[in-house]
Amino acid sequence: MDANNPQAIRRAIRSGQHKGNTSGLARGFVQANLAILPSDWAADFLLFCQLNPKPCPLVGVASNPGDFQIDSLGADLDIRTDVPRYRVFENGECVNEVEDIQALWRDDLVTFALGCSFSFEEALLADGLEIRNITEGVNVPMYRTNIACKPAGRFSGDMVVSMRPMKPADAIRAIQICSRFPSVHGAPVHFGDPAAIGIQNIDAPDFGDAVSIRDGEVPVFWACGVTPQVVLEQSRPPFCITHSPGHMLVTDLPNSKLSVF
Amino acid sequence: MDANNPQAIRRAIRSGQHKGNTSGLARGFVQANLAILPSDWAADFLLFCQLNPKPCPLVGVASNPGDFQIDSLGADLDIRTDVPRYRVFENGECVNEVEDIQALWRDDLVTFALGCSFSFEEALLADGLEIRNITEGVNVPMYRTNIACKPAGRFSGDMVVSMRPMKPADAIRAIQICSRFPSVHGAPVHFGDPAAIGIQNIDAPDFGDAVSIRDGEVPVFWACGVTPQVVLEQSRPPFCITHSPGHMLVTDLPNSKLSVF
Repeated sequence: MDANNPQAIRRAIRSGQHKGNTSGLARGFVQANLAILPSDWAADFLLFCQLNPKPCPLVGVASNPGDFQIDSLGADLDIRTDVPRYRVFENGECVNEVEDIQALWRDDLVTFALGCSFSFEEALLADGLEIRNITEGVNVPMYRTNIACKPAGRFSGDMVVSMRPMKPADAIRAIQICSRFPSVHGAPVHFGDPAAIGIQNIDAPDFGDAVSIRDGEVPVFWACGVTPQVVLEQSRPPFCITHSPGHMLVTDLPNSKLSVF
Repeated sequence: MDANNPQAIRRAIRSGQHKGNTSGLARGFVQANLAILPSDWAADFLLFCQLNPKPCPLVGVASNPGDFQIDSLGADLDIRTDVPRYRVFENGECVNEVEDIQALWRDDLVTFALGCSFSFEEALLADGLEIRNITEGVNVPMYRTNIACKPAGRFSGDMVVSMRPMKPADAIRAIQICSRFPSVHGAPVHFGDPAAIGIQNIDAPDFGDAVSIRDGEVPVFWACGVTPQVVLEQSRPPFCITHSPGHMLVTDLPNSKLSVF
């Protein structure tokens, strides 16, 4: 497959040719977190995203229950087949991990696509900044915090953040760059003291891998797309489907189109 | 005088009716740092400002040597009379402080007007952020650093910074707001550890007054308009004139016009 062509990547995933994660694929194009919910839970989740745009930035929503297409993200896109790996939840617990959800599809399912940090990491790299988790070849470290999301209906929970260590001058530049991309988590939510947002041990992330923090660097924290998954687990809808971490929906939307100035 | 009308304020200063500093006057309008140099030093200084836009952001330059007007800053403006207090330097040393420079004016003098932090402080306050030096009713603390300015001809020196303590989330918002105003120092240059930029004692500023830093706050450092005065002292042009600290040139330029987006 052509690793820089989003349609070719989706075709390879759809046919079972590509089963791995999507990190590094389709550079320049938006990859999305996925949340699929029954329609009687969808209005609450839409409001939750609206109220919490930093952890839950919507880049696409299916127009109607049962739709498995989101035209704005790719004309040929099929939500049921175009993600390499899905997680299936019942009452907030992951009960299965599958490569295709055609057999699980229902006419009442509403699909939400949320922006992901790959887009802003690309913008930071393009500006010459170092991303430690990329340098060290590991997953970005992610932490549960005590920053409460704004509740919406049956959905509530605390924010999950990702962390990238930087020198202060680089952090200032990163804040400027990320502010241009509110649809992919936007500016950081915190820097410096981890305890100030309820993180007890920076070397023991709740998700992903630890990275080294060098002399003169401070940890910089971004709202993270894992937040909605944690909120879904806590809020226990009877049924929902998400992507598996790192196995994202590759879209036709250029990252540059998300820039607000 | 009408304290919100820049022309009225300049008239009051010109007539000797207002002799004090200009802090809090003409809210919404740009106030400028002033540097006046003989023409054979002007090209070097212009280049210095061009190379160091954060400490030396030009908001106006007189079109020709000897001009005491800068139309873009105010049609009636007279550089020789419209600043409440001037400092006169010979060979880098302050030899006099005067309220009028008509008697000192020369046909070879070139006037530079540089943006000042009053403009971005106003934008921060308008967004609901606290400015500690304003809350505590003192001058902003300023420090010499080891951040070298880029040299230009006979001009060189280290950057002076101003400091405002903030919680990290407020600092992130301040970085966003100040990034919109590159003509008045723009985004901060550093936050956190003072020693990283050569500041030994945060409680003993080199200029201005100390302010309290509360639990959970970090010092945030902006490039400061005192930098060119320190550079002028070090570079020792035979003659130059600046405003006295806090006694700025009040212009007709709305702060909002400096916003780049």
